[in-house]
Amino acid sequence: MIDPVVLKGFRDSLPKDEIPKKRIIRKLEDVFSSFGFVPIDTPVLEYTEVLLGKGGGETDKQIFRFKDNGGRDVAMRFDLTVPFARFMAAHHDDVGVPFRRYHISKVWRGENPQKGRYREFIQCDFDIVGADNAISDAEILSLMHTSFATLGIEHYTFHISHRGLFSLFLSSLDLGDKSIEVLRTVDKLRKIGEEEVKNLLTGITGSEDKAESILSYITAGEGRSFMETLEELEKLSGGESDPSRRMREIYSILSDLGIEKSFVFDPSITRGLDYYTGIVYETFLDDLPSIGSVCSGGRYNDLASLYMKEKTPGVGSSIGLDRLLAALEELKSPLLCDTAAADVLVVPKAGMESEAMKTARELRENGLNVSVYLNPEAKMKKIYAAAESGNIPYLLTFNDADISVKDLRTRETFSYSEALEKIVKDRKN
Amino acid sequence: MIDPVVLKGFRDSLPKDEIPKKRIIRKLEDVFSSFGFVPIDTPVLEYTEVLLGKGGGETDKQIFRFKDNGGRDVAMRFDLTVPFARFMAAHHDDVGVPFRRYHISKVWRGENPQKGRYREFIQCDFDIVGADNAISDAEILSLMHTSFATLGIEHYTFHISHRGLFSLFLSSLDLGDKSIEVLRTVDKLRKIGEEEVKNLLTGITGSEDKAESILSYITAGEGRSFMETLEELEKLSGGESDPSRRMREIYSILSDLGIEKSFVFDPSITRGLDYYTGIVYETFLDDLPSIGSVCSGGRYNDLASLYMKEKTPGVGSSIGLDRLLAALEELKSPLLCDTAAADVLVVPKAGMESEAMKTARELRENGLNVSVYLNPEAKMKKIYAAAESGNIPYLLTFNDADISVKDLRTRETFSYSEALEKIVKDRKN
Repeated sequence: MIDPVVLKGFRDSLPKDEIPKKRIIRKLEDVFSSFGFVPIDTPVLEYTEVLLGKGGGETDKQIFRFKDNGGRDVAMRFDLTVPFARFMAAHHDDVGVPFRRYHISKVWRGENPQKGRYREFIQCDFDIVGADNAISDAEILSLMHTSFATLGIEHYTFHISHRGLFSLFLSSLDLGDKSIEVLRTVDKLRKIGEEEVKNLLTGITGSEDKAESILSYITAGEGRSFMETLEELEKLSGGESDPSRRMREIYSILSDLGIEKSFVFDPSITRGLDYYTGIVYETFLDDLPSIGSVCSGGRYNDLASLYMKEKTPGVGSSIGLDRLLAALEELKSPLLCDTAAADVLVVPKAGMESEAMKTARELRENGLNVSVYLNPEAKMKKIYAAAESGNIPYLLTFNDADISVKDLRTRETFSYSEALEKIVKDRKN
Repeated sequence: MIDPVVLKGFRDSLPKDEIPKKRIIRKLEDVFSSFGFVPIDTPVLEYTEVLLGKGGGETDKQIFRFKDNGGRDVAMRFDLTVPFARFMAAHHDDVGVPFRRYHISKVWRGENPQKGRYREFIQCDFDIVGADNAISDAEILSLMHTSFATLGIEHYTFHISHRGLFSLFLSSLDLGDKSIEVLRTVDKLRKIGEEEVKNLLTGITGSEDKAESILSYITAGEGRSFMETLEELEKLSGGESDPSRRMREIYSILSDLGIEKSFVFDPSITRGLDYYTGIVYETFLDDLPSIGSVCSGGRYNDLASLYMKEKTPGVGSSIGLDRLLAALEELKSPLLCDTAAADVLVVPKAGMESEAMKTARELRENGLNVSVYLNPEAKMKKIYAAAESGNIPYLLTFNDADISVKDLRTRETFSYSEALEKIVKDRKN
């Protein structure tokens, strides 16, 4: 016998998890499609050089990398951004720009699994490439807003900032050459707190004054409205600028759309990565702040520089689907509650199997999901257990020519036609 | 610069391919759900031993196998059956039996890519486990029938046979110990023809008479109805038997359901694999016989014997989704035609971006997919090109306060309210 175990950091998805996951993915796909975003897919395996760049990551323990049977150095994708960059370089002319794509798929990282983190997980990315303007930024933010609303999450806040504005501010302090270190330190604010960030910044900048200036910049949003914060940061960064004008334009569109209340200007948001150049954002669930950001991203001025000369500016977001699912579970989202394998369990009588299958077909033609119990010899106890383990609410049985349908939650019994009407109505709600 | 190439045997999926692929997968998922089948997922990577069995496949060049960073011998799944067997052994008690699952996902094989064959491809498997009776067999066959009907394929034929019946026949010829070799040879009938099969069988059985007997068994379906074939095979296999009774029961249910005309009894169908024990079947598209079977499977009496002592009988099918998609393309299926990125392309006027976004939102609230053109400075020529490359049928433009909508296929122009009604109606058809 071989032990039927999965690898450390990997897991099976049982129907009770997979049914709601698929439902949520469909909802997101429908929202993305309604905004004109189109799906793409890319190979799970790519040349390591394509994923990591030349020379890069020789010692990267985080990825699943190996030599294939043809001796090629290959790796499993660790995110969906790098394959998208490669995709755009390969298919730029086929897809045309501005191009909006979404991609919901698995990625793999060999990092040590912690609570709630796995080596195989699902990313959900959506980007607009080939346009650098306020309407594109606002479109991504508006799509994020619609996505969370569609998932039935009531309270969420998008924390936005602008990398370019922060860079202007750092230049005014003569810290332009230290911006990456500063950004990465600021990015830790939520984790390590103000005092520790200040200490680190003093070390980096060599000046307690400068550290304090940075701290007052990144905390400028506290107690201020979006526009007040913007004005304060304009002052700190040397007056009106392209980045501050962009933020004003974006906020104006969000206000016209009436969704501005979900957005706060939070200059402590920097995102660790080098490659953002414009707006950056994270998304927090007000009722579950501890789980961290469930949707993050920002604007970059060149997606595919590794693979092509032409610049591909864009703005994009990534939803960590596993984290979002965990959040929805904690929030007791109705989207996760319905894990029924079917609406009705039809129990055939031995020798009358065809009758059962015909009845099932008729119910399906009315839009219902119907499971035929496939062991006509079973005792009722086993049948009830099957309905329960599949969370199936209705049981249909035959008594000679008569059909009776039982609601297993209320124990009420109905005739076939009563039941059909009721279940179809149940399902529409 | 790094060349943005994909690995040999792999490919990107562009929106024009990915949109219809997702549509077809959703349709199949909806059919499976309507039959009470539930989705599961399993890891892409597993222990090699779990996938190949102990000792097995040391030299198997067909799979992507490597040592991970922790030194584990791992491999990417090469089908969805083996992971399902492992899944059932691990979760038998959680899911309960009879259990119906579907799994639509990618698998990987390192074989040399040929026309229409790739190293990364999508399998679509559905199985019923934990029941061994005619109603389960008929349920799978009925689900296959409904699936193909739902995909709008008009002419398809399921070729079924019964492994147990063939075994009885072979035993009657004293060939019980050679059955695997015989089955594999018979499986080649379509490829190499009767004459060559007869030669090979003569070699295997050591008797031209026996080879001829086998040939008359496997061709007994020619020119005969399902029931006539069954009777003939009963005669050849020594009279009525459990397998022949099972086939009669199945056919009786299919007839009661009125779908028996899509099924032919074809005793040349054996499926190469050892592990089938009951019905076996392949599915051919009558208008495209050359592409081979698009949905195959059968009954096995023990799915998970590698991992558990308890027997798990079942019956299951696998659709080769890439082959099916190629077939639908050749059949000019309407399911593949609609590759529109959106129903409407809304073109903002510079300075009126919010108006465009509000109009887009209103259209979305009517169930439409709407793309906002994200470069308000662009010339009309570029905008038309964008609509064309996204296959978007309607163009909405602003002229001061007026909105006009153009059907790009007919060049007709509509007012906003006329257009909204028309597009919503278009979409419902």
